[in-house]
Amino acid sequence: MRRKGRRGKEARRSAGGKEEEGTLAGVIDLAVDWMTDLKEGVCLSAFWYSHEQCCWTSNETTFEDRDKCPLWQKWSELLVNQSEGASAYILNYLMYILWALLFAFLAVSLVRVFAPYACGSGIPEIKTILSGFIIRGYLGKWTLLIKTVTLVLVVSSGLSLGKEGPLVHVACCCGNFFSSLFSKYSKNEGKRREVLSAAAAAGVSVAFGAPIGGVLFSLEEVSYYFPLKTLWRSFFAALVAAFTLRSINPFGNSRLVLFYVEYHTPWYMAELFPFILLGVFGGLWGTLFIRGNIAWCRRRKTTRLGKYPVLEVIVVTAVTAIIAYPNPYTRRSTSELISELFNDCGALESSQLCDYINDPNMTRPVDDIPDRPAGVGVYTAMWQLALALVFKIVITIFTFGMKIPSGLFIPSMAVGAMAGRMVGIGVEQLAYHHHDWIVFRNWCRPGADCVTPGLYAMVGAAACLGGVTRMTVSLVVIMFELTGGLEYIVPLMAAAVTSKWVADAFGKEGIYEAHIHLNGYPFLDVKDEFTHRTLATDVMRPRRGEPPLSVLTQDSMTVEDVETLIKETDYNGFPVVVSRDSERLIGFAQRRELILAIKNARQRQEGIVSNSIMYFTEEPPELPANSPHPLKLRRVLNLSPFTVTDHTPMETVVDIFRKLGLRQCLVTRSGRLLGIITKKDVLRHMAQMANQDPESIMFN
Amino acid sequence: MRRKGRRGKEARRSAGGKEEEGTLAGVIDLAVDWMTDLKEGVCLSAFWYSHEQCCWTSNETTFEDRDKCPLWQKWSELLVNQSEGASAYILNYLMYILWALLFAFLAVSLVRVFAPYACGSGIPEIKTILSGFIIRGYLGKWTLLIKTVTLVLVVSSGLSLGKEGPLVHVACCCGNFFSSLFSKYSKNEGKRREVLSAAAAAGVSVAFGAPIGGVLFSLEEVSYYFPLKTLWRSFFAALVAAFTLRSINPFGNSRLVLFYVEYHTPWYMAELFPFILLGVFGGLWGTLFIRGNIAWCRRRKTTRLGKYPVLEVIVVTAVTAIIAYPNPYTRRSTSELISELFNDCGALESSQLCDYINDPNMTRPVDDIPDRPAGVGVYTAMWQLALALVFKIVITIFTFGMKIPSGLFIPSMAVGAMAGRMVGIGVEQLAYHHHDWIVFRNWCRPGADCVTPGLYAMVGAAACLGGVTRMTVSLVVIMFELTGGLEYIVPLMAAAVTSKWVADAFGKEGIYEAHIHLNGYPFLDVKDEFTHRTLATDVMRPRRGEPPLSVLTQDSMTVEDVETLIKETDYNGFPVVVSRDSERLIGFAQRRELILAIKNARQRQEGIVSNSIMYFTEEPPELPANSPHPLKLRRVLNLSPFTVTDHTPMETVVDIFRKLGLRQCLVTRSGRLLGIITKKDVLRHMAQMANQDPESIMFN
Repeated sequence: MRRKGRRGKEARRSAGGKEEEGTLAGVIDLAVDWMTDLKEGVCLSAFWYSHEQCCWTSNETTFEDRDKCPLWQKWSELLVNQSEGASAYILNYLMYILWALLFAFLAVSLVRVFAPYACGSGIPEIKTILSGFIIRGYLGKWTLLIKTVTLVLVVSSGLSLGKEGPLVHVACCCGNFFSSLFSKYSKNEGKRREVLSAAAAAGVSVAFGAPIGGVLFSLEEVSYYFPLKTLWRSFFAALVAAFTLRSINPFGNSRLVLFYVEYHTPWYMAELFPFILLGVFGGLWGTLFIRGNIAWCRRRKTTRLGKYPVLEVIVVTAVTAIIAYPNPYTRRSTSELISELFNDCGALESSQLCDYINDPNMTRPVDDIPDRPAGVGVYTAMWQLALALVFKIVITIFTFGMKIPSGLFIPSMAVGAMAGRMVGIGVEQLAYHHHDWIVFRNWCRPGADCVTPGLYAMVGAAACLGGVTRMTVSLVVIMFELTGGLEYIVPLMAAAVTSKWVADAFGKEGIYEAHIHLNGYPFLDVKDEFTHRTLATDVMRPRRGEPPLSVLTQDSMTVEDVETLIKETDYNGFPVVVSRDSERLIGFAQRRELILAIKNARQRQEGIVSNSIMYFTEEPPELPANSPHPLKLRRVLNLSPFTVTDHTPMETVVDIFRKLGLRQCLVTRSGRLLGIITKKDVLRHMAQMANQDPESIMFN
Repeated sequence: MRRKGRRGKEARRSAGGKEEEGTLAGVIDLAVDWMTDLKEGVCLSAFWYSHEQCCWTSNETTFEDRDKCPLWQKWSELLVNQSEGASAYILNYLMYILWALLFAFLAVSLVRVFAPYACGSGIPEIKTILSGFIIRGYLGKWTLLIKTVTLVLVVSSGLSLGKEGPLVHVACCCGNFFSSLFSKYSKNEGKRREVLSAAAAAGVSVAFGAPIGGVLFSLEEVSYYFPLKTLWRSFFAALVAAFTLRSINPFGNSRLVLFYVEYHTPWYMAELFPFILLGVFGGLWGTLFIRGNIAWCRRRKTTRLGKYPVLEVIVVTAVTAIIAYPNPYTRRSTSELISELFNDCGALESSQLCDYINDPNMTRPVDDIPDRPAGVGVYTAMWQLALALVFKIVITIFTFGMKIPSGLFIPSMAVGAMAGRMVGIGVEQLAYHHHDWIVFRNWCRPGADCVTPGLYAMVGAAACLGGVTRMTVSLVVIMFELTGGLEYIVPLMAAAVTSKWVADAFGKEGIYEAHIHLNGYPFLDVKDEFTHRTLATDVMRPRRGEPPLSVLTQDSMTVEDVETLIKETDYNGFPVVVSRDSERLIGFAQRRELILAIKNARQRQEGIVSNSIMYFTEEPPELPANSPHPLKLRRVLNLSPFTVTDHTPMETVVDIFRKLGLRQCLVTRSGRLLGIITKKDVLRHMAQMANQDPESIMFN
C-alpha cells in the first residue's frame, strides 16, 4: 500500500510539471498571435488584442467581413489615415519589415547574451543527452526563459521556422527544472532521463494537440532507452499537457488539435498514385533540405560566416520579410497557411483557394459539394502557391541552424502542404474535365464530390515531414490525431513510407542525426545495425605498438606515482590490477574520485606523504618497518567494472554499450587485463566501418 | 540502394503474413456468426446463412422487423411447426443446449487429440517465448489449424469466453509459419521474435480493429524486447491486417472497429466521480477474478479434477447454456451484448434498454434526445442485467483456463459494460428526477441530454479489462480507437488508472503474469523493479558448503573424464578454465555441443579413445610420447562468455539478464572463476526476495 501512495504522488508531481508546459504553450500561442498581427496593424480598443480578438469585441462583425472591422487599424490607417493606394501599401510593407527586423534582432541578441544554448531546435542535443552524454546548462532555467521569449519573437518575425521542435526543448527544460526539485530525480541520472522522455512527449503533445503521437514521437525519435513505466508516465504527461492547453485555450474554439480538419469524402484506390508521388516529393525535399542545410551549417562552422550570427539573422529576416510580404501565402503565419491548405472547401468558404465556378442551377448543400471547375481565384492561388513553395524551400535551408530558436516541423509541413494542395487541385480539375478517362470512370461520375484537395495537402505535409525527420509511426499517428479519422491512415502511411524510402536511398541520416554528426556529439544510434565481423580486440586500446595501458596496481604504487600518472594522462579512469606481472583485474577507479581522495587524504589524514603506498585491498600490504603510513583507497574502487573477452564480436559489444548505456568496458583474456574500449572508440570504429572519417565526428 | 530493395521485400513478406491473419480473422467472424445463430434456428434459403444474412436476402424486411423474416426458422418452427407456446420454448431451449454441448465437445476433443497447446488464451506462453524460452510446437501449424477451428466452436457454443486473446496466439502461429519460410528469420532467434511481436500486434489489430492499440498492446503487454524497427513493422502489420479484415468484411457495414459508437454529448466534470467508482469496481473485479481463477486452476492442476478435462468442459457448457438461455442478455453472443450496452439511445433504437417514456408534446429529433424517465423496459433490463452480471462473474472464473481456447477480453469487457450501463442509467435517472440537486444543477438543466449511459458502459468495460490485465496505455488507446474521439480519453484514463491502482493494491500480478507463475515458466518480468542490495556472490552457485563448480580444464582432461562429468551432471554447459589451480576462465562449452563433438570424433576421427586428452587451446598440449591422439575442441568453445565480478550488485545483474536476454553468466574475482548464475538462479532469488516460495515457481 505504501508503494501505491508513493506512485500516486509521483504521478501528481509529474502532472504538476506538465500543466506548466501546457500553460506555457498556451501563453506562447497568444503572444505569437498578437505579435504576428502587430506587424500589420494595431487594435484601437486595446493594443494587446490580436486582430481576431480585436474584431470579436466589435460585435457587429461576422466571420466573413472579419477584415473590415473598424477597431483594427492597419499601420497606414493609423499613421497617415490611408487604407488604400500605393503609398499606404508601401508604408505597411515598411512597417512589416521593420517589426520583423526588430523582433529578430531582439531574439538573436537575447540568445547571444543570455543563453547561447537556446538556439536551434534542441532535439539533436536532447537525443544526445538522453543517450547519456551531459551538456551542462543545456536544460537550465536561463535556457528555458530565454528560449520561451525568443521563440515568440522569432515566430512573430515571420522567419521560416516553427515553434514545435523548440517546444520539445522548452518542455525538457521544464522537466529538468521539476526533477531538480526532488532529490529522487536530481540524484539519479537514469530517473532524470525518464522524466525528460516524458517531458519530450508532453512537448509534442502541446505542440500538435496529439497526446498519443507525442508519446510515440518520444519513443521513436527522441528517447534512447524507453522503459515501460516511462510509456505510461509519458502518456499521462502528454494528456495533462494537452488538456491544460485546451482548458486555457484563449480562442474559444476548443482546439485541442492544431489543424483540425473534417473531410466529407473517402479516398479512392486510384488516388494512391498521386499520394505516392507526393511521398517521392517528400523524400526528395528531405534529401535536398538535409544536404543543403548541412552544407550551409558546415560552411557557417568553418568559415568567417560563423562570426557574424546577428548580421546573418538580420539579413535572412530582411530577405524573408521583403519577399514574403507581397505574396498572401507567405505573408500570413505559416500555421495559418497550413490550416487553410488542409481545409476542405465548404459552401461558406471565402478563401481564394475555394473560388470555384458554381453551377447556378444547383441548390447548394452545406457539405458534400460536387467537384466544380476552378475559377480565377484558384488559378491565381496556384501561381502564388508555386512561388511561395520555391521561396519556402530555399529560405528554410538557410534559416534552420541560425543562432535563434528554430523548429522545422511547420516549414516542412508547409512545403508539403503547398505541393500537395497544388497536386490535389490538379487531380481534381483533371477528374472534373475528363471524367470519361479510364482512371476516373469508376469512381468519379460527373456531379460527384470525388477529390478533396485538402487531403492531398495533408498527405504532402506528412511526406515532407517524414522526409526530413524520418519519423514513421509517430508521424502517421500525429497526422491521424489531427484528422481523427482512421480512414486516412492508408494514404498517410503510403506517403510516409515512400518518403522514407526515397530519402533513405540518398542518405540514411535524418536531419537530427545529421546535426548530431555535424556537431560531433558522441551519440550511439540505436537504429543503426552493426553487422561487421570485427572483434573487441580490433577496437580496444592500446593497439599493437602503442604504449601499454595505464593501470594502477592494488598495493604497490605510491601516492606520487599515481599523481604523476594522473598528470601525464587525461583518461577518465584507470583499471586496477593485482600486479603488473599477473595483470589480473580487480576493479576500476575514476580519475575524478582518485584526485579528490588523494587531496582529502593529504589534507586531513596524518602521515600521508608522496612516498605513501596506496592500496585498494581490504587489508594494508605488509610494508617495511620504517615506511610511511599507507593510504587505503578501496572506497573509490568500482569492484564491478564491465568486462568482455578479446574474442567478443563487436556486434555484441555495440549491443552491450547501447543497452546498458556504458561509457567504457574493459577487455580481458583468461582473466588478464588486455585493454579498454570507450564509447568514443566504439563510435570511431563504427564510423570507420561505414567509410566515414573517424576523426571528424568526435567531440570533447 | 540494394539495402532498400531488401527492406521493401521484407515489408512485403511480412505484409503477406498479415493479410493471411486479416483473412483468417474475417473467416472466423463469419463462421462464429453462423454457428451462434445455428443454436437458435436455420435459414431455409441456404443453411449456411446466419440470421442476419438470411433476412437480408428476403428483401421485404427493414431493420426493425428483422426478427420476423420468414426465411429464418427457429428450430421449433422447423421441427414441430410451432413458434409460440411453452412446448416450442422448451424445444428451442433443448436445441440450444444440445448444439452448445456438441460444439464444446467437438472443440475439447480436437484440442485433446491433435494440439494440446491450442488451449487457453496463449498470451502467457507467448510472453514467455518472447522472453527467450522455447516451448517446442507451441507455435506450430497444427496448433494454428486446431486453435482456429476450435476457437470458432467454443465461441459459438456460448461459453463465457472471447476470441481476442486466442487470436493473438493464432496470429503468432501465422507469424512463426511465415518466418519459417525464410531462412533469415528461421535461423535467427532474435529476428523470429521480432516477427512474433509484430504478429501479436496484428492479432490485436484484427481483434479490435485498432492498429495503434495493437502495436501498443504488443509493446506494453506481450513483447519482452521491442526494438524500434519492430515498432514500424508492427504498425505496418497491424494496419495491413486491419484493412484486410475490413476489405473482406462480409457485413457490408465497413466495421473496421468492433464496437463503433458515436455519442452526442460531452462528459462533465461531476461525472468523473461515477467513472472513478467504475474504476474501483474494475479493480475489485480484476482482483476477484485473478484470485478465484488462479485458485481454481491450481486445484485443477493438483487434484483429480485435472484428469477429466472433457467432462469439465461439458459440465461448464451445460451449466452456461441452461442458465444463459432464459436471460436475453446472456443468450445472445457476448460481443453483441457489449455492442448494445455501448450504444447511445437514438430515436430509432428499438432495444429494451432504450424504452424511455417520451414526452408526447416534444418533436423527436434524430439525435440529441434529452434525458427522459425510464420506462418498464429499462427497469426489466436492469434486473436482467444484474442477474446476467452475477452469472457472468461466476462462470468466467470457471471457464478461463479449461482445455479449450479461451480469451478473457470479451467476458471482462462484458462484466464492465453491464455494471457501467447500470450505473449510467442510475445516474441518468437521478439527474432527471433531481436536477435541482447541487451536483446536477450546473450542467443538467431539464430537457437537456446530459448523461450518456453508453459511455458509462464503455468506461466500465475499460476499467474491468484494466483490472484483469493491468494494461494502461494500450487499453486507453484501444478504447479510444473504438470511439474515435479524443474527448473521452480522460474518463477512460481515470477509470483505467483507478482500476490499476485498486487491483495493484491487492496483488501486483495481472492475469497473464499470474498464469505464468502458476505454470512456472522462467519469465523475468521487465516491469518488476529489483531494489534489494544483494550481490552476485550471494546468488551464484556453488554456495558455501556445496561441492565446487563442475569445470573443464583447457588441456588436461581426458575424453573419459568429460563423459563422466556429462553423465553425472545435468548442467547445460561447463566453464572452461586454464587449470584447476589458477581457475582463470577462458570460455564456456555447451553440453549439447560437447556431446555431439565427442560422439562425432569417436566415430570419425582415428585414434580418439577414452584416454585421449581433450584440449581447447589453439595448439595441442605437449604430451608424453606414447599417449593417444589428443582431441581438439576449440570449435565448440564460446570464447566470449558473459562475466560479472562477485561484487556486482544483483540489481545490475538482473538488469543485464533482462536487457541482454542472457541464460547464464559467470562470476569471477580478479580473473578467477568463482561460480555461475543462471536465469533460474536469478528468478529463484527474486522470488525469495519477494517472500515467495522459490521452489514452487520453477519449471523444467
